[in-house]
Amino acid sequence: MKYYIIIILLFWGSVTSFAQRPPSISSPEVHKNNTVTFKYYSNTAQKVLLHGEFLKTPLEMTKDASGVWSITTDPVKPDIYPYFFEVDGIQLADPNNTYIFANERFKRSIVDIPGDTPLVHSLQNVPHGKISYRYYQSETLGTTRQLLVYTPPGFNPSEAKKYPVLYLIHGGSDTEETWTKVGRANLIADNLIAQGKAVPMIIVMPYGNVRPAPMPDFTKDVMNDVIPFVESNYPVLTDSEHRAIAGFSVGGGQTLNIGLTNTDKFAYISSYAPYTATEEFQKNFSNYSPDADKINKQLKLFTISVGTDDFLYESVKKNIAMFEEKGIHLKSYIVPGGHDWMNCKLYLATTLQEIFKD
Amino acid sequence: MKYYIIIILLFWGSVTSFAQRPPSISSPEVHKNNTVTFKYYSNTAQKVLLHGEFLKTPLEMTKDASGVWSITTDPVKPDIYPYFFEVDGIQLADPNNTYIFANERFKRSIVDIPGDTPLVHSLQNVPHGKISYRYYQSETLGTTRQLLVYTPPGFNPSEAKKYPVLYLIHGGSDTEETWTKVGRANLIADNLIAQGKAVPMIIVMPYGNVRPAPMPDFTKDVMNDVIPFVESNYPVLTDSEHRAIAGFSVGGGQTLNIGLTNTDKFAYISSYAPYTATEEFQKNFSNYSPDADKINKQLKLFTISVGTDDFLYESVKKNIAMFEEKGIHLKSYIVPGGHDWMNCKLYLATTLQEIFKD
Repeated sequence: MKYYIIIILLFWGSVTSFAQRPPSISSPEVHKNNTVTFKYYSNTAQKVLLHGEFLKTPLEMTKDASGVWSITTDPVKPDIYPYFFEVDGIQLADPNNTYIFANERFKRSIVDIPGDTPLVHSLQNVPHGKISYRYYQSETLGTTRQLLVYTPPGFNPSEAKKYPVLYLIHGGSDTEETWTKVGRANLIADNLIAQGKAVPMIIVMPYGNVRPAPMPDFTKDVMNDVIPFVESNYPVLTDSEHRAIAGFSVGGGQTLNIGLTNTDKFAYISSYAPYTATEEFQKNFSNYSPDADKINKQLKLFTISVGTDDFLYESVKKNIAMFEEKGIHLKSYIVPGGHDWMNCKLYLATTLQEIFKD
Repeated sequence: MKYYIIIILLFWGSVTSFAQRPPSISSPEVHKNNTVTFKYYSNTAQKVLLHGEFLKTPLEMTKDASGVWSITTDPVKPDIYPYFFEVDGIQLADPNNTYIFANERFKRSIVDIPGDTPLVHSLQNVPHGKISYRYYQSETLGTTRQLLVYTPPGFNPSEAKKYPVLYLIHGGSDTEETWTKVGRANLIADNLIAQGKAVPMIIVMPYGNVRPAPMPDFTKDVMNDVIPFVESNYPVLTDSEHRAIAGFSVGGGQTLNIGLTNTDKFAYISSYAPYTATEEFQKNFSNYSPDADKINKQLKLFTISVGTDDFLYESVKKNIAMFEEKGIHLKSYIVPGGHDWMNCKLYLATTLQEIFKD
């Protein structure tokens, strides 16, 4: 054991001239009573704060003689939460935590508090599907783009079986990885399929940001590039009753834009806390005069979900009222919680149990 | 256009109570002449440094009136490089760059300087394979673990064709994603296969860190869990002449441990800048008395690569000499460069052109 420690010290001492690495620290440490200890090393910092989506206000961390700042929280409700450190005003992800929020504009870490009872997103001992990273050529955007494809447990492209497909879109500064890395869409699907609560399906997670191009291009990209790529590379059913679309925040707005202008293509539309203050949404819905009877017949399910603490709560309620006023049938899910991925996972778990059921 | 700007401002102003987001900045910006501009926003920082693996020493960034720190580098040799900011002594990844180094102990960003001529790791207009994220049950380690599997362009499990397999291991604090996220193993394979320089193969990237368990468990995990999982889930050839192993740094040491104690299972062993100051390597090789003739017949290729600026250069040279002294045939590649992923990509590109050729 002594020998082993010496080896590690030797390795650290010599590892690279690129930059001195700080000492290795175990952070976060989740305890059995659902409290969590977070640690950060700095001998020079004056003030270190812990920000977390499980906290109402940031917590001050305290430094020990070796320069390790730490804090142990009160018990936290089991879930997966983003958090970060604020070191003398600078926000940063936990250097010792591998799990990072897939996002284009911030670096936050993820802490998983499993609790005693498996949650809908927990890694459980059930058959697992797989996530594939694929490139496709977007003629719309003139570039090669990446998307993720979940195929369910037992998926075998050589069998005659064909699958329904859910197109699932991330939030505004997220990436094509956010639905799996933060939303655990694959594990939620694995668990619900194992329980017989969801049917085996393919879930396609495209990259929804097309900045600096205007937003409408993403609708074209999905319709003209993503869907044809999926349908020529996977054994999928191609009628509208086996095609669903869902998304969160900016992706929730994109879901409404894409889905409701293509009700002959998608029989299931689920929008989570949609952000709709976009040019495309204004164009589609500011003078919306739908053939409601036709749309109601085409759609087997149209849902809009939002949390009462969501900063978009009032906006979402207005849009729900607008669609209802136009005679469009929809189910609204008004739940506790904010504009976050804790709620997002629950929205998805609900959708997966509702789509492709007959 | 004005309308669009107003929408974006509205969105930013209201986005979340979790934490005020800093303004969005485009960083890094790679220019046509291969110079790069890096930016970081802080109104309170006193000193911001840019560290990059393309720099001999860190560069001081300068602040403008709006609080944006920036620096434009001299022209940089086209490649992919890790970098980070040091803000008043605190190291952090670029908040505005999505591409992050998959690692357990630091958060660094990645800048891609493509240059005028496609590099071996560039995303080119060639048929692409796919990367699948899979779970397997490790009986050795008593847990469910993740690994990545690259399948080549045109891979179709329903065909009778069976593929050779390369097992490819990351460095010491890296993850199962580092070979694709930083090493671009998939794109290197795509490009070399398209050029006819590599044969279509499956590449399996397991997670090599088994701390706090002792290192030898990873050898058992690969032999008893990873390989059986791959061979029961993919159409692969199972003789030693269609099985290769390679790895970098700690993974290069693991490659020697796993490969050379199983020369009946692996006919190709390629070790990149191996870190060998481990208990397992000592056990296997401090009193190494191999049947060199037998091993030389079993191995179709045994290579060790290292850069002359690698901090392990002397150690690697000693090990090369040790193997040669024992009569084991090997090819050594002594090249310029350090202990980094720029060299790592070239080591892999060499290996892919050497294995499974007959």
